[in-house]
Amino acid sequence: MTSNNSDMTGLVKILSLTPPALQDNTSDADRLKGALSLALTGRVQPRIITIDMSLLKALPQLLRQWSYHVRCAVFKDRSQWILTGITDAADTRPLAGLAVDLGTTRVVLRLLNLSTSEILAESSFDNPQIAIGPDILTRIHYTDAEGGLEHINRLIIKGLNREIRELCLSCGMETADVYSMAIAGNTAMTHLFMGLNPHWMIREPYIPVVNTPGVVKADELGIRLNPLARVLIFPNVGSYFGGDLIAGILYAGMNTAEETAILVDVGTNAEVVLGNKHWLIGCAGAAGPALEGGVTEMGMMAGPGVIDRIAIHPDTLQFEIHTIEEKPPRGICGSGVIDLAAHLFLSGMIDIRGKFVRSVCSDRLKEKDGILHLTIVPAKNSATGNDLTVSQADIDSLIRSKAAMFTILETIAMSVGMSLSELQTFYVAGTFGYFISPRSAITVGMIPDLPIETYKALGNTSLGGATLALTSPECFDEIDRIRDRITYLELNVNQEFMNRFSAAKFLPHTDRSLFPSVKVLL
Amino acid sequence: MTSNNSDMTGLVKILSLTPPALQDNTSDADRLKGALSLALTGRVQPRIITIDMSLLKALPQLLRQWSYHVRCAVFKDRSQWILTGITDAADTRPLAGLAVDLGTTRVVLRLLNLSTSEILAESSFDNPQIAIGPDILTRIHYTDAEGGLEHINRLIIKGLNREIRELCLSCGMETADVYSMAIAGNTAMTHLFMGLNPHWMIREPYIPVVNTPGVVKADELGIRLNPLARVLIFPNVGSYFGGDLIAGILYAGMNTAEETAILVDVGTNAEVVLGNKHWLIGCAGAAGPALEGGVTEMGMMAGPGVIDRIAIHPDTLQFEIHTIEEKPPRGICGSGVIDLAAHLFLSGMIDIRGKFVRSVCSDRLKEKDGILHLTIVPAKNSATGNDLTVSQADIDSLIRSKAAMFTILETIAMSVGMSLSELQTFYVAGTFGYFISPRSAITVGMIPDLPIETYKALGNTSLGGATLALTSPECFDEIDRIRDRITYLELNVNQEFMNRFSAAKFLPHTDRSLFPSVKVLL
Repeated sequence: MTSNNSDMTGLVKILSLTPPALQDNTSDADRLKGALSLALTGRVQPRIITIDMSLLKALPQLLRQWSYHVRCAVFKDRSQWILTGITDAADTRPLAGLAVDLGTTRVVLRLLNLSTSEILAESSFDNPQIAIGPDILTRIHYTDAEGGLEHINRLIIKGLNREIRELCLSCGMETADVYSMAIAGNTAMTHLFMGLNPHWMIREPYIPVVNTPGVVKADELGIRLNPLARVLIFPNVGSYFGGDLIAGILYAGMNTAEETAILVDVGTNAEVVLGNKHWLIGCAGAAGPALEGGVTEMGMMAGPGVIDRIAIHPDTLQFEIHTIEEKPPRGICGSGVIDLAAHLFLSGMIDIRGKFVRSVCSDRLKEKDGILHLTIVPAKNSATGNDLTVSQADIDSLIRSKAAMFTILETIAMSVGMSLSELQTFYVAGTFGYFISPRSAITVGMIPDLPIETYKALGNTSLGGATLALTSPECFDEIDRIRDRITYLELNVNQEFMNRFSAAKFLPHTDRSLFPSVKVLL
Repeated sequence: MTSNNSDMTGLVKILSLTPPALQDNTSDADRLKGALSLALTGRVQPRIITIDMSLLKALPQLLRQWSYHVRCAVFKDRSQWILTGITDAADTRPLAGLAVDLGTTRVVLRLLNLSTSEILAESSFDNPQIAIGPDILTRIHYTDAEGGLEHINRLIIKGLNREIRELCLSCGMETADVYSMAIAGNTAMTHLFMGLNPHWMIREPYIPVVNTPGVVKADELGIRLNPLARVLIFPNVGSYFGGDLIAGILYAGMNTAEETAILVDVGTNAEVVLGNKHWLIGCAGAAGPALEGGVTEMGMMAGPGVIDRIAIHPDTLQFEIHTIEEKPPRGICGSGVIDLAAHLFLSGMIDIRGKFVRSVCSDRLKEKDGILHLTIVPAKNSATGNDLTVSQADIDSLIRSKAAMFTILETIAMSVGMSLSELQTFYVAGTFGYFISPRSAITVGMIPDLPIETYKALGNTSLGGATLALTSPECFDEIDRIRDRITYLELNVNQEFMNRFSAAKFLPHTDRSLFPSVKVLL
């Protein structure tokens, strides 16, 4: 047996098996397993290779047809390697894997060449469960109804199958060319994807069905890929700390770094992890009434015509807005809101409590139903034909959100006796993190006053982690190790937390010495 | 978590899980896995436990319904433990396992209590593939026809399902009460059971599809047990050395004994293993033209009215026959034929070449179609209304068979530089071995002239090995170790073999010094 391990990921092996002979009468399956185990581990240990019954039935014919020269795709499941695909060694058609970020709102797919890690295609679609409810809680409650769980599970499975089919078609492939999948999502989305009852997740003491789902046959999940394909489902640490964040830790490489870093994923909740290769501590921002509504309730989803950046000229108080794809403005997204608040503050249009300063705002300010609104874009320039405004309530909400975020960051750092100022790397995950201006976020006191280069936007870390898991066998074990090493910090909304929260409800903070770089005119 | 490990086999665990709490929010599945791994191995290592998706879906409800007090049935698959069943801890209904000896002719089932190893019920049925052909070769050729493999596979699967259902009913159980199965058969029967193409097994270089099928879901095989049930399929060493013999080695305990023993399973072939805990060498008697027809082509299957023991009074030459269930005689089985030949020889009715001695046989001898026949039971005493006779051709055939057997035994002993006279234990497996008289077998020179107490009839060793595999987790690994340690001795029917074979074609042997205990009058 000789093997050509020219694959870059270690997950595709080209093998030239010694054909059987009277003096070497090992069976077809054990011959292949022996050679494959040698190529994978350097030792002949056929029992670490799993071959499904359906492939076993076809194997003798295939091996002879291909003269014992084969290309194999494998997937690791703890101590076993699963043979998920086999072709003629001469076949150059890519063996594909699929990475999935299973978001509550949006689901992102990435098709990869398993030999090279090359991205073949990407796409995304709205999570079809939005039809049941935009938020997690509504969806979980829905599963209590007769047939609710089956229905909500079918929605995501059918949506994925349709999208996978189209994604494959888009690059001239078939779903049968996909031999493995890795999927990362929050704990609730993962449960609904697996058809597991999330009922107990939202009731004290908040127990998920499973923390470590591991590797499951695509077929058992109803996902249409190659019939032999396996799905790695990212594990979770609890109902509020999901596989998406574990994928993020993997993608950021926090688990292997000597220096301590922080990773913040601002989605519906603020999920935060602090740590290094020796320890990891995590918490999620669903922390009771003070934080109700999460940290990003303001603004709309990013899209064409949505304001994502704003500046206000300090002298003229002119608004300089930027919209996505530079289309006429129709609303404002999270990163735009933070920019806006920062510049309103820097220009003196809001005070340190976030309240509009009438004398500065002058005729931009209007009262509507007893609440002050500041015009950002007048009706004549907007895509909607109405004024685009921000209300005092919106600003108040942002202040609560940013205060919650900062308090969570302080709390997690304090829990290990660190000061936020000691951080050398601050990873920001998610689309939101990608658009956010760290300068503005510092100005409003949402994130600590660290040198700008400390902040690193990582984009979709969930998708990034799922991609790594598909293309690097070491990551399979690393995912388990990350999960096991995370200490979950339960956020106790006690008096101390509330005191810190109150202190953070000013711009940038009651303790100005924490934000030396924020210079305001007033 | 506390556990009550009062089970005797180690494969059923009663667990009292600590119910979840705010400070202990591990998921239901991981909580159970942790406790189960602790009970099984003394360490909390949840990842060594596999829980199927279907059980995962039901688990939260079941655990709460049973207040986290559960009884679990597990099955070992190399480094993983599979949770195959779970009930309320208070449930006393037996958790059953099924051992199967998958014979070419007869299939034997044994239902066991997995907690106690107690036998709940046994039954057997004719292998329905007999309808295709009584012998292996005919059945394998049949699979080459369109749909042949599927048909012959369905025959055995349907037969097993029907028999399993009846066996369960016979002791007030359901097939869903059966959580595991172990099946041992020769390589061909195992392939047909799994639906694997045996085409290449009978064509040079005689390659099976698989040597180590391992553990498969019952459902994937079409076997109707509990939906979570697993099937351990005994491995083989090649096309002619099957799982039945590996089960036999396990049952005889040769793999753990310091002293060297031999195990002979006389079925359609003679399968022989020699060895001890340090080494094992095996061979099978399908050894070319000299042995065509195998070693037991004579006689009929054991059953009521079949002669299983014969003695001939040395002075009166009166035949003393014994039939199974003492019914009127209707034929003679293998053990009866050996008794007959031994006593014909001792009484001088056949000579050392096995030829009838006319002067001694006198009027018992008749010629029919040019061949001499000896009357054993006259028509008036037989159940058939015809004389029961043995022909010169029958005796010649027995001589060839016994010579083949003795030559194989000599060859395997010589291959490790041993003499057969050194053996302290000689295990005889199979129903044939159970009925055979070692004294008679020695007299005809079929087996070596060892003290009678050296011979130990083990009965159905294939079923015995399958039983052990079901009830002792250590055996799971031991089966793999046995398989890997067997050196298969290819019987080369060369000149040396033929010389030894010719020398063994006399009663008891050309070299009388090999059989000092055989005293004949002549």
